[in-house]
Amino acid sequence: MRLDASANGVFPISATPFADDGALDLDSAARLTDFYLGHGATGLTILGMMGEAQKLSPEESSAFMKVVLDRVAGRIPVVVGVSNPGMSAMVALAHEAMAAGAAGVMVAPQPSLKTEEQLTGYFAAVCAALGPDVPVVLQDFPLVLGVHFSVPTLEAIFARHLQIVMLKHEDWPGLSKLSRLRRGEAERGTRRLSILVGNGGLFLPQELARGADGAMTGYAYPEMLVEVVNRTRAGDIEGAEDVFDAHLPLIRHETQPGLGLAIRKEILRRRGAIASAHVRAPGPKLDALDHVELDRLMDRLEKRLAAIRRS
Amino acid sequence: MRLDASANGVFPISATPFADDGALDLDSAARLTDFYLGHGATGLTILGMMGEAQKLSPEESSAFMKVVLDRVAGRIPVVVGVSNPGMSAMVALAHEAMAAGAAGVMVAPQPSLKTEEQLTGYFAAVCAALGPDVPVVLQDFPLVLGVHFSVPTLEAIFARHLQIVMLKHEDWPGLSKLSRLRRGEAERGTRRLSILVGNGGLFLPQELARGADGAMTGYAYPEMLVEVVNRTRAGDIEGAEDVFDAHLPLIRHETQPGLGLAIRKEILRRRGAIASAHVRAPGPKLDALDHVELDRLMDRLEKRLAAIRRS
Amino acid sequence: MRLDASANGVFPISATPFADDGALDLDSAARLTDFYLGHGATGLTILGMMGEAQKLSPEESSAFMKVVLDRVAGRIPVVVGVSNPGMSAMVALAHEAMAAGAAGVMVAPQPSLKTEEQLTGYFAAVCAALGPDVPVVLQDFPLVLGVHFSVPTLEAIFARHLQIVMLKHEDWPGLSKLSRLRRGEAERGTRRLSILVGNGGLFLPQELARGADGAMTGYAYPEMLVEVVNRTRAGDIEGAEDVFDAHLPLIRHETQPGLGLAIRKEILRRRGAIASAHVRAPGPKLDALDHVELDRLMDRLEKRLAAIRRS
Amino acid sequence: MRLDASANGVFPISATPFADDGALDLDSAARLTDFYLGHGATGLTILGMMGEAQKLSPEESSAFMKVVLDRVAGRIPVVVGVSNPGMSAMVALAHEAMAAGAAGVMVAPQPSLKTEEQLTGYFAAVCAALGPDVPVVLQDFPLVLGVHFSVPTLEAIFARHLQIVMLKHEDWPGLSKLSRLRRGEAERGTRRLSILVGNGGLFLPQELARGADGAMTGYAYPEMLVEVVNRTRAGDIEGAEDVFDAHLPLIRHETQPGLGLAIRKEILRRRGAIASAHVRAPGPKLDALDHVELDRLMDRLEKRLAAIRRS
Repeated sequence: MRLDASANGVFPISATPFADDGALDLDSAARLTDFYLGHGATGLTILGMMGEAQKLSPEESSAFMKVVLDRVAGRIPVVVGVSNPGMSAMVALAHEAMAAGAAGVMVAPQPSLKTEEQLTGYFAAVCAALGPDVPVVLQDFPLVLGVHFSVPTLEAIFARHLQIVMLKHEDWPGLSKLSRLRRGEAERGTRRLSILVGNGGLFLPQELARGADGAMTGYAYPEMLVEVVNRTRAGDIEGAEDVFDAHLPLIRHETQPGLGLAIRKEILRRRGAIASAHVRAPGPKLDALDHVELDRLMDRLEKRLAAIRRS
Repeated sequence: MRLDASANGVFPISATPFADDGALDLDSAARLTDFYLGHGATGLTILGMMGEAQKLSPEESSAFMKVVLDRVAGRIPVVVGVSNPGMSAMVALAHEAMAAGAAGVMVAPQPSLKTEEQLTGYFAAVCAALGPDVPVVLQDFPLVLGVHFSVPTLEAIFARHLQIVMLKHEDWPGLSKLSRLRRGEAERGTRRLSILVGNGGLFLPQELARGADGAMTGYAYPEMLVEVVNRTRAGDIEGAEDVFDAHLPLIRHETQPGLGLAIRKEILRRRGAIASAHVRAPGPKLDALDHVELDRLMDRLEKRLAAIRRS
Repeated sequence: MRLDASANGVFPISATPFADDGALDLDSAARLTDFYLGHGATGLTILGMMGEAQKLSPEESSAFMKVVLDRVAGRIPVVVGVSNPGMSAMVALAHEAMAAGAAGVMVAPQPSLKTEEQLTGYFAAVCAALGPDVPVVLQDFPLVLGVHFSVPTLEAIFARHLQIVMLKHEDWPGLSKLSRLRRGEAERGTRRLSILVGNGGLFLPQELARGADGAMTGYAYPEMLVEVVNRTRAGDIEGAEDVFDAHLPLIRHETQPGLGLAIRKEILRRRGAIASAHVRAPGPKLDALDHVELDRLMDRLEKRLAAIRRS
Repeated sequence: MRLDASANGVFPISATPFADDGALDLDSAARLTDFYLGHGATGLTILGMMGEAQKLSPEESSAFMKVVLDRVAGRIPVVVGVSNPGMSAMVALAHEAMAAGAAGVMVAPQPSLKTEEQLTGYFAAVCAALGPDVPVVLQDFPLVLGVHFSVPTLEAIFARHLQIVMLKHEDWPGLSKLSRLRRGEAERGTRRLSILVGNGGLFLPQELARGADGAMTGYAYPEMLVEVVNRTRAGDIEGAEDVFDAHLPLIRHETQPGLGLAIRKEILRRRGAIASAHVRAPGPKLDALDHVELDRLMDRLEKRLAAIRRS
């Protein structure tokens, strides 16, 4: 299974589970994979930023990747994040991933890149180094990376490198960017890529209306992302947005930079998907007040979902 | 009327209205002031960042300030943003504001400040230059300014300068920061300041639970901010959060950096508070799709508010 | 006298002199203008960043500009820095400057601009707002502004706006950028602009070798900049570099961010060009040790220059 | 041999040599170590930023470290850079280094750290994780890391963690910072640390005058750094500065961000210290013009050194 530009639906960004002492927890990795599969994921992304990839040794990355790919067993495409300051390390992981059954790799630009000419050059070098057979997801995440792509630059990169089949879109604000990319396809015949949105899903209904194909993000209730996408496709726009709005207080809560990952892992733990909410050091920890606050937000979510089901 | 540490409630950050050709629109300034007064504002803040203060000439700032202060006529305290790269220009505007009837001034740190020692020094210089009789609001807004305050640094600054009576809190994430400041007062006897929250109100219920005294932000439905604060005070925590959640899709929509100001002014225009949604160049403009999207979000808000009123 | 693309030589970036109490010192403004004229300046630039333009009121900017333009009396072209967060304030100052006899204006991009498409759009808006009769210098200064131009972006901007006649080049590193721009003219027939270099002159000999037309920078010994340019033109490359190298310890000393301005003004004061080295608050101050260090560096410079003259 | 606060002299930051195809070149690693030893290094630092540590696999880091430590054979202390986004990877490398004979480790703060309270917390966590027996060099390099330490923050960190025995000082501007740290020791009895300066040595004479104990930087002529330190200690201040000034054009040339590493490796190659100037991708490459420019600067250096020797 190779990723191509028709990919759509929901590709959760997988957390990487650790034990309370920080050791990689491969049992939870398997359980978490089942969790995503069981909640309707149409794909899966591992070793992304929210997967604390930077804090794993190469051996840990390999071990985690193997467990996930084995568990998925080809049922859905798995994208592996391979961003790395060094090109050779990126290529090594990418080739290992593809050999192990990954559907494609995700690459974010290095934060040292400044001009768009540098970005164009960087992705040319990345594609050449990976070889044309590795499908690539380009991650556009200015808030964290400090790297900014304009629409013309993205279009130029996409035109040159057919192996880039998907854009992970998490510019902020980025709604008009999405519309411009889709308009380019309609009006100027630019190549159509799959666009999955990130940012915790914070603008998912608006983004679907503007032409996104789905979501690639780590919100701890992936079934919401799936339901919003499915209802939207089925034409139930209001229903999709009702479900989304019920979750919005918690989505917003999870998009807090840094801290959001700790909240997300705690929800996954509460939901039984992983054994520990541990985030590797240096990283955030929830205190007693954070837990109380999360109790309330999860309670209120349950009540609103129940009300929607009743109505 | 002088601002002091007992200030609370809702201080809207006022937009600055322009005509379609960019000229300062003083008629709308008066109308907008009435709008804020009519929706329950307990104070008002003008010439902040969302007020496009940087794009006003000194004469325009004075004229706008005069209209607002005249219209308010002492009914509520008015805070004037005076942040400026030059100390003498800051002092001149601050003294002019106080003489014209302002209750205090708001100062954000200059983006060139890096270490917390520099921040401490900066606010010492600001307070000395303003003189002890000018009440000061310290604005803590790292996302836009790139300047970061830790809790100990804020406490040190507050301990030294009694004229700083309010913190405009818009760190992100900043919930635990708020709790730590309040815990310091309870456990270590640090001076209690008024804390009003910004960030478009995106975390208002959580922030009120953690000890905020209200909001100082520009969300285009200030009556929501007022209702959430009032219900919370009256002990109706769930009711407050229901109202808040109804608005959250639109709050989120307005917190888009840059673009959010254009959305906010357009809502104010639709609500009759100002004649034109014009944002001064260089600045964002809404396109047709943005308007359709906003139509939907405003419609859905109306329906949800109606449902709350019925229930 | 209108600035055009044939401009060359040395355009000192003028300091703005203040009295010890921070008041604008117009007597020193006249004296400083004479100093630049007397040391061979072929042009002059006022109200740039090193001129503390952000800390002047509009009235002060006008007064200072008037004194300088009167003193220059048309003998050399004067460029006026007009960068401003608001477009209308920029245009007002630019038109006032041109009416008062300026040869052109200098515009730096606003720090909020991120993508090169935004930069292209910004300079289109600036040129439209200024009108085609105002010659423009584009300032490319990433270290301070955080805004990055690639060569293709600069070429695209220059191709569209003939009124942009000069590039103030202070990218770092920027040597290959300069060569690429000149190669574009030779090989692809792009329009030739005047390129004057900034960065305190830190790479002046290398930049002249790569096609720069001179320097636009504030080093406190403008006669060195003039001599290096003149010797280079006369073919005395080694002699030019000998003079430059003699100054390099002090050039390096002046390029310290922030502090460099205080050093520069102190040297100008010691050389009799201005009455006080005062930098407006918030700004750096030299301490006793800084003065001793500067004594040594200036002494050593004098000895090396004497040795060059003897040889 | 354990690093302590009496360390002084010159600790070159070692390059990491690669073959033209990017493979780690361990023969050159041995040769380069001999080069540093032969030019009077009193210590050596490996796997720093200029050592492209981020682009090495853990296995490559180990292999390179082993070759260098074997070659040094205990003659001088070797510091190993261990900065890492993950704490456990940092600790693993640090303990491996100490077991292999390193004298200490160097730690830079992660770029995500913003407030000084976070910095204090980070170094507390690092010291706890490393254990008290690992001597630590704290790297203060704001230009590249975007992390800023004030003097009080550094003093607080040093007071709490006796195992931090050295400051690698490369703030810019940072001269007064150095003086304040030394003044603190003299006037307030703060603990004296070794301070070695970086920034390519760009301010070495001024920094030695202000109390630095030497240099830790990668300038490709380490014998200059050694001579400047030795002459200064012997009281030959003018002679030290004469030698320094002769090198300054090339020092300045090497301090160009990014490109400077390619220049440095090319000089090391020309001097016979390494077989190839290859910088791992993504990274800078010199073009023909860059080589010509470097020829000139190296020629001029030779002539000036010859003149100094004659005089």
